[in-house]
Amino acid sequence: MTAGSTFGNLFRITTWGESHGEALGVVIDGCPAGLSLNTSDIQVYLDRRKPGQSRYTTPRKESDEVQILSGIFEGRTTGTPISLLVFNTSQRSADYSEIASYYRPGHADYTFDQKYGFRDYRGGGRSSGRETIGRVAAGAVACKILAELGVNITAYTYSIGPVTIDESRFSKDAILTTPTAMPDTEASARAEQYLSACMAEHDSSGGTIKCRISGLPAGIGEPVFGKLDAVLSEALMSIGAVKAVEIGDGIRVSTARGSENNDEFLSAAHGIQKASNHAGGILGGISDGSDVLLTVHIKPTPSIFREQHTVRQDGTPLCVSIKGRHDPIIVPRAVVVVESMCALSVLDLMLANLSAKMDYLHLIYQ
Amino acid sequence: MTAGSTFGNLFRITTWGESHGEALGVVIDGCPAGLSLNTSDIQVYLDRRKPGQSRYTTPRKESDEVQILSGIFEGRTTGTPISLLVFNTSQRSADYSEIASYYRPGHADYTFDQKYGFRDYRGGGRSSGRETIGRVAAGAVACKILAELGVNITAYTYSIGPVTIDESRFSKDAILTTPTAMPDTEASARAEQYLSACMAEHDSSGGTIKCRISGLPAGIGEPVFGKLDAVLSEALMSIGAVKAVEIGDGIRVSTARGSENNDEFLSAAHGIQKASNHAGGILGGISDGSDVLLTVHIKPTPSIFREQHTVRQDGTPLCVSIKGRHDPIIVPRAVVVVESMCALSVLDLMLANLSAKMDYLHLIYQ
Amino acid sequence: MTAGSTFGNLFRITTWGESHGEALGVVIDGCPAGLSLNTSDIQVYLDRRKPGQSRYTTPRKESDEVQILSGIFEGRTTGTPISLLVFNTSQRSADYSEIASYYRPGHADYTFDQKYGFRDYRGGGRSSGRETIGRVAAGAVACKILAELGVNITAYTYSIGPVTIDESRFSKDAILTTPTAMPDTEASARAEQYLSACMAEHDSSGGTIKCRISGLPAGIGEPVFGKLDAVLSEALMSIGAVKAVEIGDGIRVSTARGSENNDEFLSAAHGIQKASNHAGGILGGISDGSDVLLTVHIKPTPSIFREQHTVRQDGTPLCVSIKGRHDPIIVPRAVVVVESMCALSVLDLMLANLSAKMDYLHLIYQ
Amino acid sequence: MTAGSTFGNLFRITTWGESHGEALGVVIDGCPAGLSLNTSDIQVYLDRRKPGQSRYTTPRKESDEVQILSGIFEGRTTGTPISLLVFNTSQRSADYSEIASYYRPGHADYTFDQKYGFRDYRGGGRSSGRETIGRVAAGAVACKILAELGVNITAYTYSIGPVTIDESRFSKDAILTTPTAMPDTEASARAEQYLSACMAEHDSSGGTIKCRISGLPAGIGEPVFGKLDAVLSEALMSIGAVKAVEIGDGIRVSTARGSENNDEFLSAAHGIQKASNHAGGILGGISDGSDVLLTVHIKPTPSIFREQHTVRQDGTPLCVSIKGRHDPIIVPRAVVVVESMCALSVLDLMLANLSAKMDYLHLIYQ
Repeated sequence: MTAGSTFGNLFRITTWGESHGEALGVVIDGCPAGLSLNTSDIQVYLDRRKPGQSRYTTPRKESDEVQILSGIFEGRTTGTPISLLVFNTSQRSADYSEIASYYRPGHADYTFDQKYGFRDYRGGGRSSGRETIGRVAAGAVACKILAELGVNITAYTYSIGPVTIDESRFSKDAILTTPTAMPDTEASARAEQYLSACMAEHDSSGGTIKCRISGLPAGIGEPVFGKLDAVLSEALMSIGAVKAVEIGDGIRVSTARGSENNDEFLSAAHGIQKASNHAGGILGGISDGSDVLLTVHIKPTPSIFREQHTVRQDGTPLCVSIKGRHDPIIVPRAVVVVESMCALSVLDLMLANLSAKMDYLHLIYQ
Repeated sequence: MTAGSTFGNLFRITTWGESHGEALGVVIDGCPAGLSLNTSDIQVYLDRRKPGQSRYTTPRKESDEVQILSGIFEGRTTGTPISLLVFNTSQRSADYSEIASYYRPGHADYTFDQKYGFRDYRGGGRSSGRETIGRVAAGAVACKILAELGVNITAYTYSIGPVTIDESRFSKDAILTTPTAMPDTEASARAEQYLSACMAEHDSSGGTIKCRISGLPAGIGEPVFGKLDAVLSEALMSIGAVKAVEIGDGIRVSTARGSENNDEFLSAAHGIQKASNHAGGILGGISDGSDVLLTVHIKPTPSIFREQHTVRQDGTPLCVSIKGRHDPIIVPRAVVVVESMCALSVLDLMLANLSAKMDYLHLIYQ
Repeated sequence: MTAGSTFGNLFRITTWGESHGEALGVVIDGCPAGLSLNTSDIQVYLDRRKPGQSRYTTPRKESDEVQILSGIFEGRTTGTPISLLVFNTSQRSADYSEIASYYRPGHADYTFDQKYGFRDYRGGGRSSGRETIGRVAAGAVACKILAELGVNITAYTYSIGPVTIDESRFSKDAILTTPTAMPDTEASARAEQYLSACMAEHDSSGGTIKCRISGLPAGIGEPVFGKLDAVLSEALMSIGAVKAVEIGDGIRVSTARGSENNDEFLSAAHGIQKASNHAGGILGGISDGSDVLLTVHIKPTPSIFREQHTVRQDGTPLCVSIKGRHDPIIVPRAVVVVESMCALSVLDLMLANLSAKMDYLHLIYQ
Repeated sequence: MTAGSTFGNLFRITTWGESHGEALGVVIDGCPAGLSLNTSDIQVYLDRRKPGQSRYTTPRKESDEVQILSGIFEGRTTGTPISLLVFNTSQRSADYSEIASYYRPGHADYTFDQKYGFRDYRGGGRSSGRETIGRVAAGAVACKILAELGVNITAYTYSIGPVTIDESRFSKDAILTTPTAMPDTEASARAEQYLSACMAEHDSSGGTIKCRISGLPAGIGEPVFGKLDAVLSEALMSIGAVKAVEIGDGIRVSTARGSENNDEFLSAAHGIQKASNHAGGILGGISDGSDVLLTVHIKPTPSIFREQHTVRQDGTPLCVSIKGRHDPIIVPRAVVVVESMCALSVLDLMLANLSAKMDYLHLIYQ
């Protein structure tokens, strides 16, 4: 896409809105008709990313209540664009008047100024984490369609700083109940201690999120540029603060040998399966029927209270300590954003795959 | 893009061709008019990826000579589509008759069958490494334009199996002269020993490629989905065998603290600069004027002579040892592919950026 | 575009909303930063298409007040998506309960049902003329940019039924003051009489709109599929009720000879000009610097009070007389829609043209 | 599409090549797998547009033999890009050295120079009628798929200058056997006389082509911008020399009344039908199950031997008489181009329609 706020081709979303503008939202174009959909389907996803749910998230108060403005009639999607909107209610632009004058390290202030000539500096404007509201609202719709087709997506916090979960203690419920979005309550407790230490030192922490897409049929992905892994990587790397994306074994493949990395095929009751899943469910850019496995690495919140050197727009150096309302870690609230971006990617490619073979055309246009 | 063989929006390429078809090629649409261009500009890039240049590449003999069929007049691009073509000359389809009947582990045989109902099994068909000929031919054109604009892209092998280069011994010349494409001849010698051992054991090796984009002006990238890092990730992950992409510090950010990861701004003679480059030259998805730094992780060649279990199309299990002509490592020949995909991404976004502000419109349409 | 509610590539709009939904709107992505913009810039365009301004338009009362929800900061566009919204205030869904059960002749009821399985029948849902609110709101922004670049677009009613204007009496002011949007008050008076007669006979009338784009520099249009005339035709034919589009001499070319149809070039004070403009300002799909001339033919309002035969969804025949609030002619309110679609087309191609030659790249990235 | 030589989204073609370059061709991306296809399927279409078939076409000799370079395996499409190529064999660039220095009236010489800074002047370069080779080759593939789905497209010459066919004498065979591509041999004889007179006077003639798409299921088209009529108009207006496009009753709607123009629905043995077809098979931008009817108006060949005034690139006036090999009428050879562009449009929208409703998703991904 040229203009940057559209994602997807067939299930296509266009997000809009700034941190301290009137509202944020998304238009979904290309949603198949006949899906049962109401605001609560979407609200439950937005609630997972909304602020103020633990001491590790910004104290900014936003209920992030979604409104459906079009595209639904008598409780079902009509095939026309679905416009979803969330009004901002807790803008405190005054908080940000100071940062108008200088460039916060690790933020997009400088690059927006370079690109556009000036910027909406209030809370980071378009580069705020609130930009993901549109992604999550649309992702909720995609997830509902995928669930009907038997595809389920689960993301969770895998690590925070040095604290990593133990997969043997995996509890899906814990993802929604721990303040860290870790599926392992024990690791979560240790992660909270680590975060408290960071906060005490006026610092922030990075972490990783893992995501599993299960139930995806084999055959999804459009070689050679619209490969499933390519689209997922674009989708995930487009989330603010993500700095690395791994598919399956990811970085470990570079030190592996072919005999270790290859997944052998075997004959199973329900057809052909793989004996292992180093590939993370993708071969040649196309899903192979096993779980798709992803890992993203997220940088520490750049807003820290600790003093940092920086410059004003005119180049004058100064020393700053970021004020305002910030999360000491981005990871927990990004979990649902990762799920959303995966859902949008996978659904769009499942729609693209409908034209893969003449058999499908004959089936529909018999 | 929906149909998968097109990349880019304004500088848009469409690649085509199979490993054992008549030819492979690319159509470049949207190349600005007035660029001086001839076949040797392109051939020098293709020569870097062509086979048979060392004992670590397939012995298949292909000269990979490019022909320009359109879009050039009197030595300059005309603004109309540039069609580039390379004929296959060393197809030996007979080599592949055996693999028609079963699924090679680690290859796309199974997924192509699942998606399309059948497949061109000769040498992997469209999922062969030869598919990258079109990418590299187009990448050469993009690189030439970028060079005119002061942007240079250098990729190199960073590691092969356990052998990693020492950046202090970096020699740009060595990238072109070592059989490993390593910029460190000493590390290259050790990597060759490692590869020989792999080959002796009928095995293959993975590795990593790093890439540096220098001279890129600040302001390139289209938030929030066409971010520079998102587009680069998509581009790189679309290369066969790439399983992870890192931007700047990449996976290290997840264990870092904000105070370590932030790059402070400072006042410099030529304007504003950063004191460090953990971000890898990208903030908020937009280039910040420092070098863009990328790392990709590439899996070991899945074709190994060692015996593996697999199944036939009907599910019958069998034990296979892959025959044919294969590289024991993908990395060295992928270096120029990485450069090409980066060039295509960056140039396309530089063209998109031409509509970023009214100032530019007034400059052109004064 | 695949999903149908997006138009344009670089200046890209996505419209949404139904006749009797909560609201209608548009997201503009790709608007260059630094344009001064406020609601009144847009409202003046919306006011030209809003209902209830004469006895020849539906009596439905809508103020169609636009709200800007994003993309503007301190009175200027920021380069991020601009979300524009108009709330519906005069929905009277009850009016439409009857038409839920049958297919109105000349309307999209039947085809929406065939495509999507069911439809929002209230006031035509997405196929209502209110859908054009998003087009006009975005068109107003495009027109403002174009005006800054010296490009002006003027559409007007050329004929209503048998009544045609006399170009020698052309008054630009009259377009805004006559209830017919004719630039000729005398013809307008006759057209009003004709419309009154149609209304008395419970019937409706078709008509034509002409549009002139002046000040457009030579060189705009992207052969061979993104030609200026191709894009304008798509844009205009996408307006509901348009059934024919002509460029320049249009249908007259089919009976002309080359010696009559060719425009000779001549030497002028300000460079090269054409001696005539049969081509309507476009040669080979690219603007030639003279005025672009367009004509669209618009069908009569399909909603008529007169009795018509039709069927219910189950095929049962019945005889209907359409109730509700309808215009006896579509043309006058479509004039500003034609201007808007032309503006969106032309601006998008002016942005695409920024990558036409290396000279432009050197100018921006010097 | 931004760069102009790509058409379609799901069945996407990219054409390339100049009149006097090495070759011309097209890459089809997104062709469903499993279609039986060989060169003769395509050649029969190319033969209908190739030159030298009557005294009313250019005497340039080109066999226009198509080669398939990729995307086919064992006689069937594989789902990967299909590259089709035709070598130019009768380039006589010397013929054109003269026109390098001035602008031919009615041609794109001037506008290409204005856009790109210079041009390939040999035979019009990219703006030559030979550019349509790629369209027709791809159109042949689209037509074959459509035929399998029961959709048939027939275009024919409807008028040449003042000579119009009589539909009551319609003979489909005559389209292929008359030199005018008229389906009425009697009218064709009169048209030939008219053309001979034009040629004797060193002049050329315009004409019209009509096209009928039958068997198209209801439901095809993507409101509000990807409407069937909008896409068809774009497709047809992108053909060189087309200056007007009409759908159904076309220009007649502007003088019609609603009671005349509306098509009533009626109950029929095979479901719901329309009592008339003023709409040309499209309601609200979506096919209604009746035949789609189109008319295009084509200007006279701009190359005439008669003397015309024009200018050189520096503005110096001169008087020219165009030399070279030209058709005195464009219409007969454009008939198959019209069919091709209709086929490409309709097929692409039939693929887009596969995501219209959840029912289809459940059918494929059961």
